[in-house]
Amino acid sequence: MKNTFGNSVTITLFGESHGDSIGAVLDGIPAGIKIDKAFIENQLSKRRPFDNISTSRVENDNFKIISGLNGEYTCGAPICIIIENENIKSNDYNEIKHLPRPSHSDYSTFCKHGKYGILPGGGHSSGRITAPIVAMGAIAIQILKNKGIFIGTHIKSIYDINDREFSDYKKDIEKLNDACFAVLDDVISQKMQDKIRFVKSQNDSVGGVLETAVIGLDGGVGEPWFDTLEGMLSHGLFSIPAVKGIEFGKGFDITEMLGSSANDELYIQNERIGSLSNNSGGICGGISNGEPIIFRLAVKPTPTILKEQKTVNLEKKENAVIKPSGRHDPCIVHRARVVADSITALVILDMLSQKYGAEGLK
Amino acid sequence: MKNTFGNSVTITLFGESHGDSIGAVLDGIPAGIKIDKAFIENQLSKRRPFDNISTSRVENDNFKIISGLNGEYTCGAPICIIIENENIKSNDYNEIKHLPRPSHSDYSTFCKHGKYGILPGGGHSSGRITAPIVAMGAIAIQILKNKGIFIGTHIKSIYDINDREFSDYKKDIEKLNDACFAVLDDVISQKMQDKIRFVKSQNDSVGGVLETAVIGLDGGVGEPWFDTLEGMLSHGLFSIPAVKGIEFGKGFDITEMLGSSANDELYIQNERIGSLSNNSGGICGGISNGEPIIFRLAVKPTPTILKEQKTVNLEKKENAVIKPSGRHDPCIVHRARVVADSITALVILDMLSQKYGAEGLK
Amino acid sequence: MKNTFGNSVTITLFGESHGDSIGAVLDGIPAGIKIDKAFIENQLSKRRPFDNISTSRVENDNFKIISGLNGEYTCGAPICIIIENENIKSNDYNEIKHLPRPSHSDYSTFCKHGKYGILPGGGHSSGRITAPIVAMGAIAIQILKNKGIFIGTHIKSIYDINDREFSDYKKDIEKLNDACFAVLDDVISQKMQDKIRFVKSQNDSVGGVLETAVIGLDGGVGEPWFDTLEGMLSHGLFSIPAVKGIEFGKGFDITEMLGSSANDELYIQNERIGSLSNNSGGICGGISNGEPIIFRLAVKPTPTILKEQKTVNLEKKENAVIKPSGRHDPCIVHRARVVADSITALVILDMLSQKYGAEGLK
Amino acid sequence: MKNTFGNSVTITLFGESHGDSIGAVLDGIPAGIKIDKAFIENQLSKRRPFDNISTSRVENDNFKIISGLNGEYTCGAPICIIIENENIKSNDYNEIKHLPRPSHSDYSTFCKHGKYGILPGGGHSSGRITAPIVAMGAIAIQILKNKGIFIGTHIKSIYDINDREFSDYKKDIEKLNDACFAVLDDVISQKMQDKIRFVKSQNDSVGGVLETAVIGLDGGVGEPWFDTLEGMLSHGLFSIPAVKGIEFGKGFDITEMLGSSANDELYIQNERIGSLSNNSGGICGGISNGEPIIFRLAVKPTPTILKEQKTVNLEKKENAVIKPSGRHDPCIVHRARVVADSITALVILDMLSQKYGAEGLK
Repeated sequence: MKNTFGNSVTITLFGESHGDSIGAVLDGIPAGIKIDKAFIENQLSKRRPFDNISTSRVENDNFKIISGLNGEYTCGAPICIIIENENIKSNDYNEIKHLPRPSHSDYSTFCKHGKYGILPGGGHSSGRITAPIVAMGAIAIQILKNKGIFIGTHIKSIYDINDREFSDYKKDIEKLNDACFAVLDDVISQKMQDKIRFVKSQNDSVGGVLETAVIGLDGGVGEPWFDTLEGMLSHGLFSIPAVKGIEFGKGFDITEMLGSSANDELYIQNERIGSLSNNSGGICGGISNGEPIIFRLAVKPTPTILKEQKTVNLEKKENAVIKPSGRHDPCIVHRARVVADSITALVILDMLSQKYGAEGLK
Repeated sequence: MKNTFGNSVTITLFGESHGDSIGAVLDGIPAGIKIDKAFIENQLSKRRPFDNISTSRVENDNFKIISGLNGEYTCGAPICIIIENENIKSNDYNEIKHLPRPSHSDYSTFCKHGKYGILPGGGHSSGRITAPIVAMGAIAIQILKNKGIFIGTHIKSIYDINDREFSDYKKDIEKLNDACFAVLDDVISQKMQDKIRFVKSQNDSVGGVLETAVIGLDGGVGEPWFDTLEGMLSHGLFSIPAVKGIEFGKGFDITEMLGSSANDELYIQNERIGSLSNNSGGICGGISNGEPIIFRLAVKPTPTILKEQKTVNLEKKENAVIKPSGRHDPCIVHRARVVADSITALVILDMLSQKYGAEGLK
Repeated sequence: MKNTFGNSVTITLFGESHGDSIGAVLDGIPAGIKIDKAFIENQLSKRRPFDNISTSRVENDNFKIISGLNGEYTCGAPICIIIENENIKSNDYNEIKHLPRPSHSDYSTFCKHGKYGILPGGGHSSGRITAPIVAMGAIAIQILKNKGIFIGTHIKSIYDINDREFSDYKKDIEKLNDACFAVLDDVISQKMQDKIRFVKSQNDSVGGVLETAVIGLDGGVGEPWFDTLEGMLSHGLFSIPAVKGIEFGKGFDITEMLGSSANDELYIQNERIGSLSNNSGGICGGISNGEPIIFRLAVKPTPTILKEQKTVNLEKKENAVIKPSGRHDPCIVHRARVVADSITALVILDMLSQKYGAEGLK
Repeated sequence: MKNTFGNSVTITLFGESHGDSIGAVLDGIPAGIKIDKAFIENQLSKRRPFDNISTSRVENDNFKIISGLNGEYTCGAPICIIIENENIKSNDYNEIKHLPRPSHSDYSTFCKHGKYGILPGGGHSSGRITAPIVAMGAIAIQILKNKGIFIGTHIKSIYDINDREFSDYKKDIEKLNDACFAVLDDVISQKMQDKIRFVKSQNDSVGGVLETAVIGLDGGVGEPWFDTLEGMLSHGLFSIPAVKGIEFGKGFDITEMLGSSANDELYIQNERIGSLSNNSGGICGGISNGEPIIFRLAVKPTPTILKEQKTVNLEKKENAVIKPSGRHDPCIVHRARVVADSITALVILDMLSQKYGAEGLK
């Protein structure tokens, strides 16, 4: 389905980095849900370049909801949000048009679409397209909140600097959702920002790990095959440019545990069944078990760096070097955080819609 | 879509562990492709309990292709394969019917379906359902071979024992596909098998990491959003019971690299463009770049162990202990290997069909 | 999606006329629904050759539910039903293998699949594949009944012989569902059967019109674009071999009415809103309005007749004549009736699942 | 999938009649296809109110392609077209907000969405949303033309006034595509327009039949079950507001023919296989046979008429009368013509993409 994702609640993306505007269509939302535009704006602000550790491209992300509303409420029709592109400097790209940036989508896009697929700023592959995802995710997050489901993501690590673990999920999620640079430990947060600034000063880039928690999701959501909760989330989350891995619960570390310590034993207290540990990350056999959903995303260092690198001139078909000079992010981990929240919300909303129907989202 | 997966080439699963039979329907395969039943049988044998390191349940997996063929060739109609269940000992499960096994799908399935969803042996959630996936994957693997695309998976690790890296992909893949216990280094292979035997003797279980390589896939396959190659593969691969993580290329390790060393520089030689390293695992921006596709799966220790563990009696709604006594696998990493190959083949075949059409699969 | 149909409740078909067995997979049915096998059998009997006005091929349609059940109840897993093929006389077809029957799918299938697509008895295109549709439709009909939704189809006409209109929907539907040859007026019924017998004696074939009524469906089901109730029903119903037209409410006749007489005026009585006429067939703007859903299907004369007809020898690439001699139906209108009911039930169940979720089908 | 339609080539609709703007996203179009904006404009002009036989609402349909292009060529990314709404007179609707128009979608939409679903001018259910369908259809038509596939639709009848039959498809299609009021016989054309003018003078409305021909489509397109060519076309075409029936080839008339005269006998000449008649409308068993695809659509009289009619006040829950006074179409048959062409083109393009892949559309 390419640019349309979801079964019952679907999002359709369109737009290119340096085109007229970018946007998305969200379908499957029932009528009568109040939309909080300020919240959408707030979510978009979390994705925007931050302080002096991001690109200097100014993205105001002035969005317009051009369909789907009846006053402040949804009317049941698809919601289309448009964000106009501003502050475009295509010239930054002109000179390097035929020189694919190493580890960027430039060359693979050329393989797929040929010369007509190559557009300044990465075109449709640009990270900028995550802005409409965030706008739509904000709507999903609002609906989930009404159902008592909350999502929060922290920067688990930048390079080798690690944040503390989640302790009180509810409070931690609140803290993260209020923060611009989402780290649980404030001292660590400064260290991470310093690291990014240093890497930037070296014309280099750096990555890290994001960790997301979803609380309030009942057991019984997901399928045993194919549309497992892990499968659906990962399908969506690998759309975040630079994500190269995802793991749930203990993830890769669980491969060095024995079953007797890896297993989450069950208990019942006050009629509520829970587990004594959560190594499974809230999902067993593809289906939620009522514990917090926990997963981590590996985010690679931004491929565009201001250093000289070997590449190929696609037009002349010869070896070449590239040294980009435009505005670029030395790190996108902190900006990707809200995209992770958004896609997570969209996936869970879709799965709830399959279980409870469009009517069940009201 | 629950038990149907894929866009142009689709697989539909059905069956329960202790039911009459299990099977799958494969649709979207054009007419005129020769089906090698011996190869299907051989692939199924790789999934079967192995030596004394697996369950003692005998699974002959006698399969029957009940539709879709015209003699030895496909006729363009959906291919249905049925595997009858044999050697069923439901009694093993009767006594523990109301006692969900920790970290198993028992409890989450109960959350989803209630008491009617609970069936002996895990019912539809049983790992046994991977047998029809392997049968259909064998067909996909045959078609891909005709196109020069080869897939191989090795056991990268069992607990803390690690296999060597891929060196010569072509040769290594051949070796793996001929092996029962797929490890590149024969000494390591023995150590891993010893480890599993030891863990079994302790009534415990163990997990590990699988690593898959796909060679021969041209650049330009995959989409920048949602249907990224990583997203599609992970969507399918999380169906393998016990998989809790997936990473492509350098995966989580890339988060501790700088962009300058993480980036895969490009070169051209004899008109072929390649990259000097493959930290991206053959995928940039969701699209293949012509390098080998590389990914790793984290497989957790089998949740069913023969030790006493805390659980809850779902009928009496009280705390309880469980100590399973049936036949169980102390490790499923080596059996999951061929399932990983199969799902990988199905996903890639589906994506090729979208690019080149059903006609393009011939 | 080829042989898989539906969004939330899906049916997947497989099998060929003269193969091992035929069947279907029904997915998306929640756990805990009691399945009445006798009712499935009864529905299948309505599709079987009838009296001396059908083919003499004996189709016992002994079906087996091989997955999806927990005793008499659904377990939430996909339901697979298999019907073994018996009484196969492939020899009837051998001599005419290279001679496509006029207006049959033989030639168009050859265009699509080439020689490997040509199988005796029409292969996967055979009307026989409607048997698993009927079996699965029976399950859908049972679930809809629990929701107060009833479906009935009568033979509106055979050639130029017309049945009376629906009068009391509830009673008429009951009468039709108890009948083997579904006509409201018993005298007309005899005339129609006589007509079919006469046509058969001439080695010719005849068609007719089916009219379906669905009562008890609330207003608000369907979408304004694409997934209109008309669009979804017609998408499914054109699968009935020989159907060449569908019309809702007044259908084509409404094109010779003025708006002032075509419009269905509304009224309210005892808080229930209804319309004074039902020229719209219960659907306005793609969405149900609470009135009975009414539509008619044009069923063409069976293409296989025992007369000499012009055709082409596909192997020799020359003009030829064909005179089939096997067992064939002179009319399939009466047999297609229960297929219409079944597809209608499957489509409506799917649309209810989207509105109310899988949970809402319980 | 609600507002997204298609499998490999998809269209997603959004917008409401009196909202900010309306539009659509077309996905699955490969890079490098030249887009002729003048042709899109020309197609849109055919849908616009015509002469004095349509609504006086002026719809300039100034469209903007906001994504998917690289200069004049597609870049492989989704194409989004936006049409701003102008000349909105919502006041026309304010007074009748609680009074659903008989046979309009007002009441069924209220059943579905409640009060938040009710918007002036029919909101998202408005026929105005067909404008973006036409814009996207124009792109599909261009691509099909490059493949030698041509589509034309004539007004077969208005009320009881009938156009002549197609004679020379190629020439007739050209004539129709150049015409504003698409009738093959110029005298009949005048009579039809006179009829519409007369009906308008009576404050009434009138319907008719559209007949579409597709030439140049090879045999072998379509599926035997579910995704039959008839099923896919009808799924899409019932989205045209006011369409209440569709028939292929001889359609309902074939039910009064015997098989011996209904069957299309085959012949071969100069290696090309054809049929001596085309009662099947170019489709057998759901699959094209290489003959022209022929179908007819029943278009009901526009439900909004300027006469007094019985209805219900949804707010006060009491019987009421309505007498609309705004600008309305006395007939939409001639405007729906280009929508039929557009949806037909989109469906066929989608099916070609499944057969030949995205690459095959180039």
